[in-house]
Amino acid sequence: MKAMPTLQMIHDAATALRDVARLTPVMPFGRLDSHLFIKAENLQNTGSFKIRGAYNKLSSLTAEEASRGVIACSAGNHAQGVAFSAMRLGMRAVICMPDYAPVMKVEGTRGYGAEVVLVPGNYDDSAREAERLSAEKGYTFAHPFNDPYVIAGQGTIGLEILSQMPEVQQIVVPVGGGGLISGVAIAVKSLRPDVRVIGVQTLNVPSMYASFGFGEVETLRDKATIADGIHVLTPGDMTFEIVEKYVDDIVTVREGEIEAAMVALLEGPKLVAEGAGATGVAAYLFDRIDTSLRTMAVVSGGNVDISALERIVARELERRGKEK
Amino acid sequence: MKAMPTLQMIHDAATALRDVARLTPVMPFGRLDSHLFIKAENLQNTGSFKIRGAYNKLSSLTAEEASRGVIACSAGNHAQGVAFSAMRLGMRAVICMPDYAPVMKVEGTRGYGAEVVLVPGNYDDSAREAERLSAEKGYTFAHPFNDPYVIAGQGTIGLEILSQMPEVQQIVVPVGGGGLISGVAIAVKSLRPDVRVIGVQTLNVPSMYASFGFGEVETLRDKATIADGIHVLTPGDMTFEIVEKYVDDIVTVREGEIEAAMVALLEGPKLVAEGAGATGVAAYLFDRIDTSLRTMAVVSGGNVDISALERIVARELERRGKEK
Repeated sequence: MKAMPTLQMIHDAATALRDVARLTPVMPFGRLDSHLFIKAENLQNTGSFKIRGAYNKLSSLTAEEASRGVIACSAGNHAQGVAFSAMRLGMRAVICMPDYAPVMKVEGTRGYGAEVVLVPGNYDDSAREAERLSAEKGYTFAHPFNDPYVIAGQGTIGLEILSQMPEVQQIVVPVGGGGLISGVAIAVKSLRPDVRVIGVQTLNVPSMYASFGFGEVETLRDKATIADGIHVLTPGDMTFEIVEKYVDDIVTVREGEIEAAMVALLEGPKLVAEGAGATGVAAYLFDRIDTSLRTMAVVSGGNVDISALERIVARELERRGKEK
Repeated sequence: MKAMPTLQMIHDAATALRDVARLTPVMPFGRLDSHLFIKAENLQNTGSFKIRGAYNKLSSLTAEEASRGVIACSAGNHAQGVAFSAMRLGMRAVICMPDYAPVMKVEGTRGYGAEVVLVPGNYDDSAREAERLSAEKGYTFAHPFNDPYVIAGQGTIGLEILSQMPEVQQIVVPVGGGGLISGVAIAVKSLRPDVRVIGVQTLNVPSMYASFGFGEVETLRDKATIADGIHVLTPGDMTFEIVEKYVDDIVTVREGEIEAAMVALLEGPKLVAEGAGATGVAAYLFDRIDTSLRTMAVVSGGNVDISALERIVARELERRGKEK
């Protein structure tokens, strides 16, 4: 059993990340009378928060481990986070990606100097290939969420929110594997137990929601979602344990509500959010959480293909037209 | 002749704006190797930089002037800037808007508590009505650009850029009436004469471009543009004099290039920019300026109707499809 991440590890991560992660802005979602604020991690380097955990993990390696290089498996934001971090630290990075991954994300990952291995089959096939290569070549495997250094890195967002808006009463965090909410919850509940921490999932893939409160990790059957960043069928055992201990509640939002929130983010705060990134705002706008509390929604990323975004906006405009 | 704005007035404006205007972030446009950075004034309160000049103007009024209220004429960002500022200062604000103004902008202006007078006819008819009401009712007229306090307010962006990125070599600023570039140029050239200040206009409405270097203000015939925020046919005489004195060059970009830059801003920095706001990025991406210099493009605003944005993205995707 690995050691659990601690508040001290999150403080250390903040120091390690000082010149690597941007201090992303906190801003009101709408007009002055709104209780909703956002932490704009879509403006983070590489377009998502993932760089925080990835860099903290890579910078924790021994010189000997670092010299052998790292390997990860991801079709999206974690891939770019690991690739960017490895480049900054001068390490070799190998990323296994499913061969159906969008060219844009493959090129994005290669753009940070990583070696991409395209693996036929689904995500699990890629993960197995990454583990095999890790064992064969001695690369350190950088897990996307179930790792104390990764969790500590993501937790720096919690520290920043408390310092940027001390009057916050509730923080809403998108949940896939649970790395982000685990880090945020440890930071926030250690320092400010009065602040509520709520997780959000898409109703199409409610893996942590299904497990939460039952003391046991569930694995769901697969279903499509526009929130690919939180498309995880089984929570980590470490993240699940932390969520059970620290998180106040997990709620779900519908796919159409996520799309509406994405468009609302374009219109109000002028930000591009990917599906996963918009779930916290969706939970607030569609009343899944207590909207009387001063609420910070973590907009976790903005990596959405422009043609997908165009279709989402067109669908939302069509829905609005019908409502009239 | 009004007194010209000075560096001292810009410093005073920065003090006045401390709790009103956000310190908007500066961020790289793309990957680490790019020389292009952006000052994200689309993330400013009310969605554009206009609040800086408007608030500075309104806060410069005497108690007696303030008690009578202010009037402005605008179909867009200046209206919201004046309305927001008047609300913050507890003043009455009347805004004359052409009756073809989009409902969204009318509602946005009313949302900040301003009284909107819809005037039949074009923008000039609205301006005349605003001047008439100003004379009749004793409201102070808040000009959108040809005013030393307005220019000083916009100039605070120049101070912020120098402090947020001292290594900047070139600043690119969208130009309509010339208020923004006048303020930025006074601040930057007073403090750092080595930094180049370049204005950008749409080729469809190149009013300052046509006047620049000739010592005389030109008035152009009207032509449509997606960059409504810089759709001004005659530069101000005060702003023109400042531009002639301080600005290094004025360049133009095509409408299609502005659209391409808007989409690139959605994809790279994850930001919604309106047409005017994207012109600086367009000038860089389409080689109208020296791209070897470390360049800051002021993204001046993000107030674009979502259905207009959807059409712009669709057109750009179509263009890309044809290029393949």
